Amino acid sequence: MNRIESPRNSKVKEWKKLHSKKGREQTNCFIIEGPHLVHEALKHQAPILEIIIEESFRIPLDWDVGSITTWAVTERVIKVLSDTDHPQGVIAICEIEAEDIKLIPNGRYLLLDNVQDPGNVGTMIRTADSAGLDGVVLGNGTVDLYNSKVLRSTQGSLFHLHVAKGDLIDWINRFREAEIPIYGTSLQGGVPYSELEPSSGYALVVGNEGNGVQKSILSQTDQNVYIPIYGKAESLNVAVATGILVYGLSTKNEA
Amino acid sequence: MNRIESPRNSKVKEWKKLHSKKGREQTNCFIIEGPHLVHEALKHQAPILEIIIEESFRIPLDWDVGSITTWAVTERVIKVLSDTDHPQGVIAICEIEAEDIKLIPNGRYLLLDNVQDPGNVGTMIRTADSAGLDGVVLGNGTVDLYNSKVLRSTQGSLFHLHVAKGDLIDWINRFREAEIPIYGTSLQGGVPYSELEPSSGYALVVGNEGNGVQKSILSQTDQNVYIPIYGKAESLNVAVATGILVYGLSTKNEA
Repeated sequence: MNRIESPRNSKVKEWKKLHSKKGREQTNCFIIEGPHLVHEALKHQAPILEIIIEESFRIPLDWDVGSITTWAVTERVIKVLSDTDHPQGVIAICEIEAEDIKLIPNGRYLLLDNVQDPGNVGTMIRTADSAGLDGVVLGNGTVDLYNSKVLRSTQGSLFHLHVAKGDLIDWINRFREAEIPIYGTSLQGGVPYSELEPSSGYALVVGNEGNGVQKSILSQTDQNVYIPIYGKAESLNVAVATGILVYGLSTKNEA
Repeated sequence: MNRIESPRNSKVKEWKKLHSKKGREQTNCFIIEGPHLVHEALKHQAPILEIIIEESFRIPLDWDVGSITTWAVTERVIKVLSDTDHPQGVIAICEIEAEDIKLIPNGRYLLLDNVQDPGNVGTMIRTADSAGLDGVVLGNGTVDLYNSKVLRSTQGSLFHLHVAKGDLIDWINRFREAEIPIYGTSLQGGVPYSELEPSSGYALVVGNEGNGVQKSILSQTDQNVYIPIYGKAESLNVAVATGILVYGLSTKNEA
């Protein structure tokens, strides 16, 4: 095992750059942290290039690290590399793979239009995974998947289902060609989600925290739906709304 | 209008203390910030004692501030009082009212057991409001309602429905006496929520982010329910789970 003592080591400086989007784009790598995320990455054969552990961290026996290069570093180094106040002793560097989503008949997909909050985006990927969806598309303008707070909020779900990026209008055209119905969400327009015609597959578009889904996208969908507000709130949090919709549609499909 | 220029003014020091739970308990007051929250508090007759505005902030014409004491302060003072990186020019000091919840026949209530994340708690109050619930009970161990991040995440919903605190076992006994069925939530035990017997009213208990609802509480409920996980995620975020459950139960009740 290699060892690094100084936070000024050139390797450390290189890894630290992965906390910025620019650094990730230059190297095509991202950084994950904490035993839960690293273990999920290992279990699901994510392309891990390097594992970095704090000297006192013991790699659990059930982790299959194979031939991955491992570095032991001092507490000072881990603190410099970590994005959290309480580093948990293990970090991994992963390769960014060009991720595409194969559209399968009756597949179910979630599309994010300009969602800004990293916690929301990560939670929505975790929710899509929980509901058994087949993929998530992050539209242009949505926060970067490899942002550390997004990664943390996914709780590892990014390693469980396909997550792609791109222009949502292009994606809508692909879904249309695959004969998968496209549902937009809106605060008022359309029909209550509970009245949606049952359909086994769908592509559901949810939108920005303040402005919702762009009009240019809502005009391209097969149907727009909303969640009724029974109290005095103006709206729901977008991650909560996503959960209500993907589970509401799943339950209906099974009934 | 009174004017304060210095962050060292004794009034400013007093207000600043309201960012800590101890400061709130000593004075029985809490602090809210931003035009949206302050406007919601005004609209819903929350007990506002003082309004503090940054000199350049113009109180919108549709705000009914009545005879509430108003202070104009410098930007430096607002920065000291604000809990955010980008203060929005207006703050209000409100009185903490002893909040009780009247249990109504067929009422619907949400109970939080040891929920720790302020964003989750605020979002859950907002979700309960959206779904038209009649009240929320924060069990002992749940993060303080007047924490600034909780308040911000409620988006004003704390002024729309009753939010009380207390020992959840005592509350469960009150719900039982009122003949309102009590549902616990659990990762596995019980029945899938979609199989729940329809009932117009309920008290739904959701739990801590890591550990769920305490066993001592789950043993006191009428029925425990879970949300099926169809993918590879281990669990849902607790605020998302709450949304799925309260909307799932509401839709069923209307059907």
